[in-house]
Amino acid sequence: MSFYTSIKKDLNTKARRGVVHTAHGDIQSPFFMPVGTKATVKTLSQQDLHQIGAEIELSNTYHLYIRPGMEIIEAAGGLHKFMGWNKPILTDSGGYQVFSLSDWRKLTDDGVEFKSHVDGSRHFLSPEGVMDIQRSLGSDMVMPLDECSPHPCEYNDALGAVNRTSAWARRTKEHFYKTGMHERGQRLFSIVQGSAYKDLRERSARELLELDTDGYAIGGVSVGETVREMFEVLGWVVDMLPEEKPRYFMGIGMPDQIVKAVGMGIDMFDTVVPTRYGRYGTCFTDKGVVVIRNGAFKMDFTPLDPECDCFVCKNYSRAYIRHLFNTSEVLGLHLAAYHNVYYYVKLMRRIREAIDQGRYPEFQDNFLRAYSSDLA
Amino acid sequence: MSFYTSIKKDLNTKARRGVVHTAHGDIQSPFFMPVGTKATVKTLSQQDLHQIGAEIELSNTYHLYIRPGMEIIEAAGGLHKFMGWNKPILTDSGGYQVFSLSDWRKLTDDGVEFKSHVDGSRHFLSPEGVMDIQRSLGSDMVMPLDECSPHPCEYNDALGAVNRTSAWARRTKEHFYKTGMHERGQRLFSIVQGSAYKDLRERSARELLELDTDGYAIGGVSVGETVREMFEVLGWVVDMLPEEKPRYFMGIGMPDQIVKAVGMGIDMFDTVVPTRYGRYGTCFTDKGVVVIRNGAFKMDFTPLDPECDCFVCKNYSRAYIRHLFNTSEVLGLHLAAYHNVYYYVKLMRRIREAIDQGRYPEFQDNFLRAYSSDLA
Repeated sequence: MSFYTSIKKDLNTKARRGVVHTAHGDIQSPFFMPVGTKATVKTLSQQDLHQIGAEIELSNTYHLYIRPGMEIIEAAGGLHKFMGWNKPILTDSGGYQVFSLSDWRKLTDDGVEFKSHVDGSRHFLSPEGVMDIQRSLGSDMVMPLDECSPHPCEYNDALGAVNRTSAWARRTKEHFYKTGMHERGQRLFSIVQGSAYKDLRERSARELLELDTDGYAIGGVSVGETVREMFEVLGWVVDMLPEEKPRYFMGIGMPDQIVKAVGMGIDMFDTVVPTRYGRYGTCFTDKGVVVIRNGAFKMDFTPLDPECDCFVCKNYSRAYIRHLFNTSEVLGLHLAAYHNVYYYVKLMRRIREAIDQGRYPEFQDNFLRAYSSDLA
Repeated sequence: MSFYTSIKKDLNTKARRGVVHTAHGDIQSPFFMPVGTKATVKTLSQQDLHQIGAEIELSNTYHLYIRPGMEIIEAAGGLHKFMGWNKPILTDSGGYQVFSLSDWRKLTDDGVEFKSHVDGSRHFLSPEGVMDIQRSLGSDMVMPLDECSPHPCEYNDALGAVNRTSAWARRTKEHFYKTGMHERGQRLFSIVQGSAYKDLRERSARELLELDTDGYAIGGVSVGETVREMFEVLGWVVDMLPEEKPRYFMGIGMPDQIVKAVGMGIDMFDTVVPTRYGRYGTCFTDKGVVVIRNGAFKMDFTPLDPECDCFVCKNYSRAYIRHLFNTSEVLGLHLAAYHNVYYYVKLMRRIREAIDQGRYPEFQDNFLRAYSSDLA
């Protein structure tokens, strides 16, 4: 069985319906991956994720390597068993976290040496080491170590990052196959870098296409550039990617950005936005966000999102959830995060239905207009 | 229909099986009331409470009066609607909180003036005012304003508190009936005080018995005295209370204390212990507590409580929950609190079954022994 099966292509946009096949089950695409950095999607249980209808969860190699550490996850029999999640898991390589969380790091062609953000202990991650960790984790989809350029970035630095990312991707693939990860049902992505430079993005994509990895990701986006610049990068790269493989726009994004990116041919999304915004009391609806601490909701006994059929919206009012936030009650974080993740997962279901029914252009236009999106 | 129906009395202990009838449904007794001080049982949704099998929830008049305030709860149509809980609710009077939380208070025969612990604003609560608040809340069982003696307490101070508690209880009952609370299906308790003095406890009970309130509570316990002293107080009072009315041992207790108190004739319990201990990662089992941060559980892939059938114990390991606590993940608090409240609610079900089957003495002995209880 191939990794990706195409079901339908929209005739007027580049939106695609497909299925991604993994050792822990199929995932209908396009899809959203709730982010469980440390083996938990913040405030939600795995039972909540099943109830929400999430078909996959994303965790982070760097964080799990630091805590609880590989000895414990290996003893548990892998990440699925450790966290009690029997559906697919994708793991980030941790490269981004080494750059963003560590006080000190030393980057060489061999890999990256860094200090733990928890206890300051020194560690070294190489492209091969990151694969070894993900083999132990047993992730269904694994990401290679890459060098993510900051924004803005000088041309020569971005070129260096592209070269290193390609070289590391080659070593990654070799190690991935040599150690039997493919035979165990794990699937390898590569990550297109190149900052905001068209020729570098194209160069990165070309070099990685030669490697013929199972899927392709566009990385180094949403790192401080404007949304317009981000979609410009997507436009340069996405059409170069093979039709028969899943395409992952890393760390994106707001609901309107997801709708737009699907129309440009993206299949996979992840972002901490629904859980992080939820913890701050900002809740998503088709008409934009509801900031629940706002005094306007003091006596508002309607649901967070009157259009929503999640258990939060069926059982609780804005006034009650506002009270929970005002009194620092944990249930408030949970209800807001639950609704937001439900909103994202359901948005993907609505997107898939629109593509299935040949009405994606109309869905996209209506959605972006109702959301008052700049992308309309 | 009377408020309390007797089903069975144990022949060898004073344990009683009954049903408490309320406007929001029946509750099988003896029972435990999960504590939702601020209209939320910490970290649990009302759906969680249904799943756990809780038949009643307890909230606090003082806290709800301060936040969100009565205007909002009245606009919602009462506390049940505000918090989305359609089963019975008992509300504390708030007297205890005025004494324990407020920096400043002035007690007179009229009532108590105090500063809010949130914003320092001044408020006045009288026995009548506390009833008015609970009428607005729509609680199924309401508690009168009382004066809870600290421990230790001089005889004369304890006597003063008994006198004031009795006087307030008379005013409370008059106001309760005059304002039609009984006709709305609300039921009034009175609270026996008297500190650690036998004659004062008996005097308090006698004076309140004259009032013939719907139920009787024993208050001013678990305020710093030893467990032995607490049970001594219970022994003085419990047999004075009428057979045909529910008996509530306020703020008690640990699992072995509940088992012991049921054997002495108590029907109703509440304590923050399962949720508070849960938030600290201390989890209950029949063999005592599991302190989940303990290094011994690092690689322990068994459930929190191998005897438990709650969703936490069916799906997660000690090692995973320990990881959640070590990384300050909210899900850890939720899983531990869920298990603990489930443990308490199920303990009450086991207690009821043991009484039903005429084997409470055996159950009590076995439980106290397995728990390594001093009360055995």
